[in-house]
Amino acid sequence: MSNRKYAIGVDFGTESGRALVVDVATGQEIATVVHSYANGVIDEKLPESGVRLEPDWALQDPNDYLEVFKNAIPAALKQSGVAPADVIGLGVDFTACTMLPVKRDGTPLCFLPQFRNRPHAWVKLWKHHAAQPEANKLNETARRRGYRFLDRYGGKISSEWFIPKAWQILDQDPEIYAAADRLLEAADWVVWQLTGVETRNTCTAGYKAIWSKREGFPPNEFFKALDPRLEKIVDEKMSRTLIPLGQKAGGLTGEAAHWTGLLPGTPVAVANVDAHVAAPASTVTEPGRMVIIMGTSNCHMVIGNEERIVPGMCGYTEDGIVPGLIGFEAGQSCVGDHFAWFTENCVPAAYEREAAQRGVGVHQLLEEKAEQLKPGESGLLALDWWNGNRSVLVDVDLTGLLIGATLLTKPEEIYRALIEATAFGTRLIVETFRANGVAVNEIVATGGLPDRNKLLMQIYADATGLTFRIPETHQAGALGSAMHGAVAAGAAAGGYNSIVEAARHMARLRDECYSPIPEHTAVYDRLYAEYVTLHDYFGRGENDVMKRLKAIKAEARGAKG
Amino acid sequence: MSNRKYAIGVDFGTESGRALVVDVATGQEIATVVHSYANGVIDEKLPESGVRLEPDWALQDPNDYLEVFKNAIPAALKQSGVAPADVIGLGVDFTACTMLPVKRDGTPLCFLPQFRNRPHAWVKLWKHHAAQPEANKLNETARRRGYRFLDRYGGKISSEWFIPKAWQILDQDPEIYAAADRLLEAADWVVWQLTGVETRNTCTAGYKAIWSKREGFPPNEFFKALDPRLEKIVDEKMSRTLIPLGQKAGGLTGEAAHWTGLLPGTPVAVANVDAHVAAPASTVTEPGRMVIIMGTSNCHMVIGNEERIVPGMCGYTEDGIVPGLIGFEAGQSCVGDHFAWFTENCVPAAYEREAAQRGVGVHQLLEEKAEQLKPGESGLLALDWWNGNRSVLVDVDLTGLLIGATLLTKPEEIYRALIEATAFGTRLIVETFRANGVAVNEIVATGGLPDRNKLLMQIYADATGLTFRIPETHQAGALGSAMHGAVAAGAAAGGYNSIVEAARHMARLRDECYSPIPEHTAVYDRLYAEYVTLHDYFGRGENDVMKRLKAIKAEARGAKG
Repeated sequence: MSNRKYAIGVDFGTESGRALVVDVATGQEIATVVHSYANGVIDEKLPESGVRLEPDWALQDPNDYLEVFKNAIPAALKQSGVAPADVIGLGVDFTACTMLPVKRDGTPLCFLPQFRNRPHAWVKLWKHHAAQPEANKLNETARRRGYRFLDRYGGKISSEWFIPKAWQILDQDPEIYAAADRLLEAADWVVWQLTGVETRNTCTAGYKAIWSKREGFPPNEFFKALDPRLEKIVDEKMSRTLIPLGQKAGGLTGEAAHWTGLLPGTPVAVANVDAHVAAPASTVTEPGRMVIIMGTSNCHMVIGNEERIVPGMCGYTEDGIVPGLIGFEAGQSCVGDHFAWFTENCVPAAYEREAAQRGVGVHQLLEEKAEQLKPGESGLLALDWWNGNRSVLVDVDLTGLLIGATLLTKPEEIYRALIEATAFGTRLIVETFRANGVAVNEIVATGGLPDRNKLLMQIYADATGLTFRIPETHQAGALGSAMHGAVAAGAAAGGYNSIVEAARHMARLRDECYSPIPEHTAVYDRLYAEYVTLHDYFGRGENDVMKRLKAIKAEARGAKG
Repeated sequence: MSNRKYAIGVDFGTESGRALVVDVATGQEIATVVHSYANGVIDEKLPESGVRLEPDWALQDPNDYLEVFKNAIPAALKQSGVAPADVIGLGVDFTACTMLPVKRDGTPLCFLPQFRNRPHAWVKLWKHHAAQPEANKLNETARRRGYRFLDRYGGKISSEWFIPKAWQILDQDPEIYAAADRLLEAADWVVWQLTGVETRNTCTAGYKAIWSKREGFPPNEFFKALDPRLEKIVDEKMSRTLIPLGQKAGGLTGEAAHWTGLLPGTPVAVANVDAHVAAPASTVTEPGRMVIIMGTSNCHMVIGNEERIVPGMCGYTEDGIVPGLIGFEAGQSCVGDHFAWFTENCVPAAYEREAAQRGVGVHQLLEEKAEQLKPGESGLLALDWWNGNRSVLVDVDLTGLLIGATLLTKPEEIYRALIEATAFGTRLIVETFRANGVAVNEIVATGGLPDRNKLLMQIYADATGLTFRIPETHQAGALGSAMHGAVAAGAAAGGYNSIVEAARHMARLRDECYSPIPEHTAVYDRLYAEYVTLHDYFGRGENDVMKRLKAIKAEARGAKG
C-alpha cells in the first residue's frame, strides 16, 4: 500500500460504460477505459429471439452493464498501476430513467429463458418513448384530480420517466408485470450487483419517479386511479426507503471483487445520475452557478437553497445534486443533434469539397465561416425546436423555425443561426429560473460540445451575457462518480465526508473561460427579444400552426400506408 | 413568292436576343436563333473605360441590341429557307423597364465619346435597383399629396420603373440628363432603329411610366414637387403620343433591311413587353384566364373588362395586353431563383453523389424524391419571401420563413415546401384578384419552369385548385412578337387585323394539362389557411420582426466595414 488513495468512477452511457481511476487527494485522472455494450441500443429486434420491436422502443441488455464491471475496471486498474488495496471507494452513475423488472434476488426477467423473448422483460432505456399514451393518461389524471406534484416537474411527467414505463409493462404484458418482484433503475440494479444490497437512490426517485423528500411518492389512490392494478406499485415493486447521494450502499461482494479485481468490501456509493454527478465534478456544489452538460442535448442543473416552482422546468429534487440543497433541472432537447442534422442534410457538396481540399472536417469549415460573421449580420433567427421544447414550454409537438432567409443566405449563416437559437433557448431557461427566485450568475459547461466548438461557447456567452467556465475534466460523469466513491469511503478511509469537500479537492476549472463581449451582447439582446416574441407566439397558443402541421403530417402519413 | 406568309418576332431578354420565324397561317415555328449580348449585364464596370459601378447597378450596351438584328434575324431567315418577300411583318418585345438616354436623332448618349465613361449614359436594365431612394421619395410625395395613380400600381411605384430611373440620372449626373433629348424604353428605341420612326408604346408607358389611357401622365406639378428640374420631363424628354399594341410603327428602313436581310418597308409593330406578348401567344386574349410566366420569378397577367383597384398588384393598363381591355399584372419575385438558391446552398453532398451515380441532375433527383411525398406529409410550411414580396404586400424588406422542421426533415421536404410556398403565393394573388372583381378561372403557364418541372405544375394545380394549361410554344415571347408583327401587317397583307384573331390562328395549348387532384387540394386548403395566417402576421405589421432583423443586419454589416 502506498500513501496515495484512489477512487473509481463508473459512468454508464447510452452505448458504453467507462471506468476512471482518480487520485482522491488531487482529482488527478490516472487511467480510463471504455467498454462498449455488445448489444448496444436494442431498438429493432431482441437479441437471439429476433422478436421485432415497435417504433419508439429502446431497450438494453443488463448483462452489458456487468461486462463493463468485468472489463473496464480491471483494464483501468491495470493501466493505472494502482494496487487494489489503494482503491478506497467506487461510485456509479447511469442514464436515467433507465429501468428494468427483476426477481427478488435481483435476476433480471430477461435473463430467465421463459421471458427472454418478451420485450417488456428487458431494460427500458432512457430514450424508450413508447410509453407516451401512459404518460398522457397519467398527466391528465393528475391534472383532473388536482395533484400538485406536477408543479415540481414543470407541469408534466415525461414518457421517458419511471411510472409511465412501469405502467406500459402492465398495460402490454401483465404477466411480466406480475412476475417482476422489483421494478428499479438500472443505476440501482448495478449497485445491487456490486454490493449484494438492494438500495434506491434519491436522485432518480426524485427526478424520475415522482418522489420528494417531503411528500414521498404520490398516494396509492393516485396509482389506483391510473389503474387499479397499480394501486400498490410502490410497496409491491419499488421501495419507500431512499438513500441520499454520497452514502455507502455497501461493500463489494466476493463475486464483484472477482469481476473487478478490487478487494471485497471496497465501499460502493449509492447510484447516481450521469448529469447530476457532473455538477460537483464541475466544481458546482452551491447555489448561483449553473452547470450545463452540452452534447446532443443540453441538460441544465442549478442548486437552490429552497424549493421554488419554476414553470416549465424538468423538475427539482431535494438532495438531488448536493445533500441538503435543492437540485433544479432543465433541458433543451436538440443541441448537438441540431448541428448534426444540419451537417447531414443542409451542407452543400461544394463545402464538402472545400473541407476535403483543406483537410478539415465539415463542422470545422462551417465553424470557421460562421466565425467570420458578426452577431446579427446574417439577418436570420431560428427557434431551436427541431426536437420539440423540453423546458419552459415542455411541448414535444413544437417544431423548428427559421426566419430571415434571402437569396444570399449562406449555409454558415444558417448554421450560426441554429447555434444562436440554442443559446437563446438557454438564456430563456436562465431567465425563467431567475424570475422564479433561483439565482444563476455564472455557467459551467461540460459535455462534448465545449471542447469541440469554441465559436458555440463564445456565442453562448455573448447571447446570455454570462461567463462560461469549463471544468478541467473531459469525463465529468466518471469523475463525479469517483468523487461519490470517495465520499462513500469517508474521510477516515482517506476520502471525504461530503461531496462539497470532495469537489474542493478533486474538481477544478480551467483558467481560460468565455466572457461575454458587450457589443455582441448588445446585438443579441435585440435578437433575443425577437426570439422571445416568436417563442411565445408559436409556443403559448397564439398560433398553434406547428401542432396543426404535425396533425396534418400524421394524417398524410396515415393515409399513405 | 410562295403562298405561305411569315412573321418574325424578336424577343430581347436579359442576356440575349432571340429571332423566331413563324408561319402566319398556322403559327408553326420555322426557325429560331439566339444571339448573346457581347457585354451582357454590365454590373461591375463599364466596357472600355473600366469605370466601376456601385452595388445594385445593372446596365446594358444598346449596340448589343442592334447586333441581335444583324445576326439573329439573318441567321433565322437562312435557317428557315423563307424568302424575305414572304415575311409580312416584324414584332419586338423587350424586358421592361429597360431605358436609356438618347439624342434627338436616336443616338444613345453612351455611343458618344464624351459620355462613354459616364454610367448614366448607358441603358439601365430592368433589374437596375439603384434608384430606390428616388422611388421612395416619389412614393412618399405621391402619398402625401394624395395622388390616386398609386392605386393603379398596388400603392407603390417600384425602383425598377421609369420615373425613378430617370430621376436618378438627374440626381447623380445632371449633365447627362441635360444632354438627353429623349429618355425612352429600349423597346421603343430598337423599333425606332428599325423604322426610323420614334414611337412610344402604351404597354411600357402604362405599366412602367405611370401613364394611363384616361388620365395620361401625372401632372407637371407632381414632377415639379419631386424636383423642379423634372417639371416638364414628359414634354421635354418623353412623349404624350402613345401607340397601342399591334399598330404598325413604320416600315423597315433601308439600313435596317440591310442589317436583317428583310425587304425595306416590311411593317414593324410598335414595341411590347416580353411578359405581355406572352399572353396572346398562350391563347389568352380574353378575361377569366390568367397567364403566368414562370421562371426565375413569376409574372401573372390577367385581362379584365373594366378597371379595378386590386390592392397590392403591380399595375393595370388599358390596352396593356389586348386593345380595348384592361391588362392586370402581378408578380412573385422569387420562384426559380428560390429553387436555384436551395440547390446551391442546401443540397448535401450525399445527394450530389447519388445524382451523379444515377446520371441525373440534382434538380431531377430532388424532384423525384419530393414527388414521393404527399401534400402535408413533410409537416413543413414556408413563406416564399426569399426575395421580398412583389404582389399583395409589395414589400422588398420581407424575408423567407420555414416552419415545421424536425430532426427527420429531409432536403426534398424543404424543396417541396419551397415549391408549395410559391404556389400558395400564386393562390393568394389569384384570390386577391377575385376578391376585387377580376375573374380567374383557369391558368395558362408559360416560361421555363412548366416544361422542366412537372411536380411543380401539379403542386400549383393542387394548391390553387385550378387547372393549369401549357401553350404549345416554348418561346412565347418571340411568338407573341411575331403575332404582333402579323397584326402590324394587317389582313390585307396576309396577316391579321387584331391580336385576338392572330391568337386564334397562331397560338395553341397542349392537350395535356395539370388538373387539381381533389384529395390534394383538400390538404392544401388547410395548409394555405396557415400560410395566409403567417403571411398576414409577418407581412401586415403585427410582427415586423423581418424588417427589424434586416435593420440589425444592415447595422452589423455597416459596423463591419
